[in-house]
Amino acid sequence: MEIELGKGKKVRRAYGFDEIALVQSIKTIDPEDVDTSIEIGGIKISAPIIASAMDSVVDPRTAALMSQYGGLGVINLQGVQTRYEDADAILDKIAAASREEYVTLMQKIYLEPVKPHLIEKRIKQIKEKGGIAAVSVTPQAALEYGPIAAKAGADMIVIQVTVVSTIHKSKQFATLDIKKFCKDVKVPVIVGNCVTYEVALSLMETGVAAILVGIGPGAACTSRGVLGIGVPMATSIADCAGARDDYHKKTGKYVSIIADGGMVVSGDICKALACGADAVMIGSPLAKAQEAPGRSFHWGMATPNATLPRGTRIKVGTIGTLKEILLGPARFDDGSQNFIGAIKTSMGTLGAETIKEMQNVEVVIAPSLLTEGKVFQKAQSLGMYK
Amino acid sequence: MEIELGKGKKVRRAYGFDEIALVQSIKTIDPEDVDTSIEIGGIKISAPIIASAMDSVVDPRTAALMSQYGGLGVINLQGVQTRYEDADAILDKIAAASREEYVTLMQKIYLEPVKPHLIEKRIKQIKEKGGIAAVSVTPQAALEYGPIAAKAGADMIVIQVTVVSTIHKSKQFATLDIKKFCKDVKVPVIVGNCVTYEVALSLMETGVAAILVGIGPGAACTSRGVLGIGVPMATSIADCAGARDDYHKKTGKYVSIIADGGMVVSGDICKALACGADAVMIGSPLAKAQEAPGRSFHWGMATPNATLPRGTRIKVGTIGTLKEILLGPARFDDGSQNFIGAIKTSMGTLGAETIKEMQNVEVVIAPSLLTEGKVFQKAQSLGMYK
Amino acid sequence: MEIELGKGKKVRRAYGFDEIALVQSIKTIDPEDVDTSIEIGGIKISAPIIASAMDSVVDPRTAALMSQYGGLGVINLQGVQTRYEDADAILDKIAAASREEYVTLMQKIYLEPVKPHLIEKRIKQIKEKGGIAAVSVTPQAALEYGPIAAKAGADMIVIQVTVVSTIHKSKQFATLDIKKFCKDVKVPVIVGNCVTYEVALSLMETGVAAILVGIGPGAACTSRGVLGIGVPMATSIADCAGARDDYHKKTGKYVSIIADGGMVVSGDICKALACGADAVMIGSPLAKAQEAPGRSFHWGMATPNATLPRGTRIKVGTIGTLKEILLGPARFDDGSQNFIGAIKTSMGTLGAETIKEMQNVEVVIAPSLLTEGKVFQKAQSLGMYK
Amino acid sequence: MEIELGKGKKVRRAYGFDEIALVQSIKTIDPEDVDTSIEIGGIKISAPIIASAMDSVVDPRTAALMSQYGGLGVINLQGVQTRYEDADAILDKIAAASREEYVTLMQKIYLEPVKPHLIEKRIKQIKEKGGIAAVSVTPQAALEYGPIAAKAGADMIVIQVTVVSTIHKSKQFATLDIKKFCKDVKVPVIVGNCVTYEVALSLMETGVAAILVGIGPGAACTSRGVLGIGVPMATSIADCAGARDDYHKKTGKYVSIIADGGMVVSGDICKALACGADAVMIGSPLAKAQEAPGRSFHWGMATPNATLPRGTRIKVGTIGTLKEILLGPARFDDGSQNFIGAIKTSMGTLGAETIKEMQNVEVVIAPSLLTEGKVFQKAQSLGMYK
Repeated sequence: MEIELGKGKKVRRAYGFDEIALVQSIKTIDPEDVDTSIEIGGIKISAPIIASAMDSVVDPRTAALMSQYGGLGVINLQGVQTRYEDADAILDKIAAASREEYVTLMQKIYLEPVKPHLIEKRIKQIKEKGGIAAVSVTPQAALEYGPIAAKAGADMIVIQVTVVSTIHKSKQFATLDIKKFCKDVKVPVIVGNCVTYEVALSLMETGVAAILVGIGPGAACTSRGVLGIGVPMATSIADCAGARDDYHKKTGKYVSIIADGGMVVSGDICKALACGADAVMIGSPLAKAQEAPGRSFHWGMATPNATLPRGTRIKVGTIGTLKEILLGPARFDDGSQNFIGAIKTSMGTLGAETIKEMQNVEVVIAPSLLTEGKVFQKAQSLGMYK
Repeated sequence: MEIELGKGKKVRRAYGFDEIALVQSIKTIDPEDVDTSIEIGGIKISAPIIASAMDSVVDPRTAALMSQYGGLGVINLQGVQTRYEDADAILDKIAAASREEYVTLMQKIYLEPVKPHLIEKRIKQIKEKGGIAAVSVTPQAALEYGPIAAKAGADMIVIQVTVVSTIHKSKQFATLDIKKFCKDVKVPVIVGNCVTYEVALSLMETGVAAILVGIGPGAACTSRGVLGIGVPMATSIADCAGARDDYHKKTGKYVSIIADGGMVVSGDICKALACGADAVMIGSPLAKAQEAPGRSFHWGMATPNATLPRGTRIKVGTIGTLKEILLGPARFDDGSQNFIGAIKTSMGTLGAETIKEMQNVEVVIAPSLLTEGKVFQKAQSLGMYK
Repeated sequence: MEIELGKGKKVRRAYGFDEIALVQSIKTIDPEDVDTSIEIGGIKISAPIIASAMDSVVDPRTAALMSQYGGLGVINLQGVQTRYEDADAILDKIAAASREEYVTLMQKIYLEPVKPHLIEKRIKQIKEKGGIAAVSVTPQAALEYGPIAAKAGADMIVIQVTVVSTIHKSKQFATLDIKKFCKDVKVPVIVGNCVTYEVALSLMETGVAAILVGIGPGAACTSRGVLGIGVPMATSIADCAGARDDYHKKTGKYVSIIADGGMVVSGDICKALACGADAVMIGSPLAKAQEAPGRSFHWGMATPNATLPRGTRIKVGTIGTLKEILLGPARFDDGSQNFIGAIKTSMGTLGAETIKEMQNVEVVIAPSLLTEGKVFQKAQSLGMYK
Repeated sequence: MEIELGKGKKVRRAYGFDEIALVQSIKTIDPEDVDTSIEIGGIKISAPIIASAMDSVVDPRTAALMSQYGGLGVINLQGVQTRYEDADAILDKIAAASREEYVTLMQKIYLEPVKPHLIEKRIKQIKEKGGIAAVSVTPQAALEYGPIAAKAGADMIVIQVTVVSTIHKSKQFATLDIKKFCKDVKVPVIVGNCVTYEVALSLMETGVAAILVGIGPGAACTSRGVLGIGVPMATSIADCAGARDDYHKKTGKYVSIIADGGMVVSGDICKALACGADAVMIGSPLAKAQEAPGRSFHWGMATPNATLPRGTRIKVGTIGTLKEILLGPARFDDGSQNFIGAIKTSMGTLGAETIKEMQNVEVVIAPSLLTEGKVFQKAQSLGMYK
């Protein structure tokens, strides 16, 4: 449905999680009887939740815990864990920084070079604890750190940058040939982020196992304010899921779609699946775990950018253990705990037995906009005035 | 009108009460001359207002009062009234709990088993006071408590769960055969909740007297945040009313549509009727009555869920007697009192003589969105700044 | 453009002032050279601004001032001015009432009967000061007070009720025959309020001089919350202006459209004219005048309703003399002063030489919705946080 | 896509920056390799950022700095710089005025006549510092001050008024013949502001070098509240860019489109280019520079209007040097610094090598509306409540 923005510019409408809701079907299923498992690059994961490759979310310990609770954690090979032997000391420093000083501090901290022996060490720490070792690198660093990680036993490599493409032009840097990288590295490769059907399709053709979908919607992301870039998640996911299905029909290969960013509560995770995602990658909701390395803070990987910082450090607080957040029982009623329980209950309520069925439940456009009534009701309940 | 959410996902737009308004017709009627009565399963009710089967809204006393003032009250057979001999002591405890402890307290309170002799006792208390005894049970408990209630003199049985379907799959529990239940129990059965034309139609075919419409929009409901599920009320009602009219045309049987949830002020009740509802079921607006068992608090029946609590306890306050809320006179001008007077004035103003005519008044989409002007005007009038 | 609210309910979209903006044309005119005059029932008014028949807005003194400054003021024949000899004492009492007691106080004050000799007195007071005497009555009281007013020298009679129709059914009261009333009373009659093409057309056929358009949008009006009724102004005006133009084409008779309600700032007045109104009737913006009888408070005529009060008393404050509000110079930059100057500047800027041309300027849908950025920018500028 | 506002009034939907977002293409480019230069009237500017002709933004010193950092600054020939020898003393006075007194003070300050010798002096000051001397006048003053400025060495003349047209009717003043002015004055002329395809086209035919696009959207602008006038920027730009392209195709002449107003963060600037602008003119974001003459305040040129003031003086604060705001490095992550770096990063990320390519990137409608979740998340992060 084409819209005219103005003479000579045609656009389309894109929708976000806050604008959609899920609709019951003719049947219901006992939540205990649904199957939430998925498979990425031959690795089976019992629940479709992946922890973001962010320093505030994943360190070796939480990566292992994520595997233990049924999901997956990705560790950033260019974060504090591989730049500093004593990463915890650095994380303490970030948590202690004031609002005024954190941007400058972060810019400084991330100037320290990445050390190859720390890449090996972190991967080993995850494997020793029984976790799946998934690691992330930027396209620029993939050729350097990717093989080191693979050799150290990484089970999965994520190549991640704010916006990825198969055609990158640069006078300064050699462009990564993703197709060649996938072939050479021999472990499953996940690549991202993208938001369109065309880019998703072009990435699938490089032989990756999964694609990360989402530009600009994350809680700690300010891409839209700084660069004007960002597509709402519901449409991004549906577009890329369409590419997955077309590619699957054409080639028989199934490349998973991982929704990344913009999910705050468990209802958002359910919506992402219903829009067509195979799994979700979440950061801020897991940064609230007691075990989270962010120490109740959360920030994105664009925050330390030396000339154009684009992430915000958010005080997310601590609401429970990682286990409570993933598996419950929930002590709050706001969708911040028992994510896997919520997925099961949502699937059961909507009559979806598998993630594939969940991708086909009915969705309606139903903006949860702020109305006069709502804002004052809420403000009142919070004691802002009587 | 189909919308493309993204490649491969078609959706439609659904509307809520805040997005619609009612339009005058060519005639007007004196409010004193309109007829607000309806009939459900052969039982005539002089005003189309039903109190929700929630522990904060209905106890035997308020159930009887609802009948006396022209409406109907439904008592929950799996709430505190049937778990505890001295329900008032428990309700005192809930009202006294702090913000931090209530979820845990509620989870504990609702672990106490339901006692069959208390089911009988509560029904008798309602009947002794001259009330219509309408009771509610979950589908899982219907076969156990339904017959006890019917034997004790219940006039109407409501089978209610967040999302109901005629096809429920479960390995652990036997699925309720609603058709058989209706036939066996011999009192009128109301079933819910649902939101779609298809599900409403499939429920009508089981022989129920009325259907509850509404998933996720209630004031104490967090289904949308936790599960992603929920359809705005105006569209839900119109869809299910369409099913009612089609079913009536085909079979001659009239199954009433009861809008349940999301109605805060009397204007919302008028809108529900104009969207096609025969009656409304309301909770929080009645929890504000002096006689309400919630003691100025309100909570939903999903709040005590042991692993995934989905309701919030809201401090609703007390604004007057139940009679003032239903019949007036209103001492406030905000739509919180004299609901039946408001229905009559709205019907008269719109030229609707009966509820059936009210279902056919003109509706427009007219979002009462929050604009910059409005929010600061309101904040100013509340003394937030000068 | 028909929209499906749900199965079996078709609706259309209606727009409000906050959703539209005016667009430049190919020409501009010096604001000093535009003509803002209109004619209603043969009476020429040099600026299209009418003060609402509300006790907080018009008393004999302000009615005369409105005429003097180029507009028109309507006095309510069933308000405090005609119920009490010493109306000022009553107005003092209302201004002194607390938030808690005002509804009850108002309900009591308006029980005092209207006195025919005060109708005569108020009209004479306006005429003595050189004003045009426009008076308002409800349809129920029109036959009783209308002739008294006409005999006392009223120049114009406004028959006003929240929602008017030509077909009113009542067992208790005789219905007013507007056609006969117009013929008998011999002074120009204005009638309202209505919002649809059909009702506007049916009212025009009764022989009235002008029609009031607007249900539910006023600042002191709570019709939408209490009754669910209300159509956004931009669409209401455009619909009724369409009826005016069709009726004019068919019969040669020009019945003016007066937009009534929902206009807060001068930009709203300009928008009302651009939607097709010939004039506007405003209350709260004029209640802010030093001379306003409301003494910095404002309330609607439905507020004193004995069983279902539907107006709110708002503290509007005092921002300047009536002259400053109408003719400037403005000391504020928020559209609250120099209304006639703003109309002239808007007309000149848009290239409209007359009110008829102003009715044809281009309008775009451009919601001034509250965005995250805006609300915090504003809150910041107000010192709510740093 | 025509919309019916009401019977007899057809309108269209216009979009603002807050309603759009930019979408990735199939390629990406290293930000260091993009070309942000443009040419206006033969003068090459290396970055498409122009400082508004506002007293709070441009004085001779900042005009020269703008040139030095790659952009352009326009000095107002009818502001304090040309009315007062010691403009700094006057700017100190404005900064010191209280909220209550500033409108009256401004109205008084701007009554002082413009002095021709100060026009010459200011232009010389800019040239001495090596800057491009761009100056602005109103159409009424163009014939008087334009030739003085041209003679004094002005490189570019901006004729600017809130709403410009080629057909201005006035009994009092002679209308400016823009075509003749362009021919006579011999330096490139920029004219504005306009918002429609038709007006843009008619202005292009007068021989101007560039057109300013934007009515009513600026931070210090209250045109919409006072006059009802204003078209959202995204649509205005796209419409006028359409006129530019059509005119170019027809005549071979390229008239630049400069988006003026409504841009708050660097993301808005990127969006303006993506909608079709060749450059942007910004005020409030530059008023936050240490060197800004507004001394941390910002106001528009309509603020001092003697009878209908339409600008607000905003306390914008000071966030860094002009160099940091334009070239970085950014110390904040909110889009308020390193504008040129943000344009480059956005262009690179979207795969646009030149401004012309940036004008063709994909845009989606994606309203960043305020949702319940967002507002409370933000309020929480700001410590408004816990």
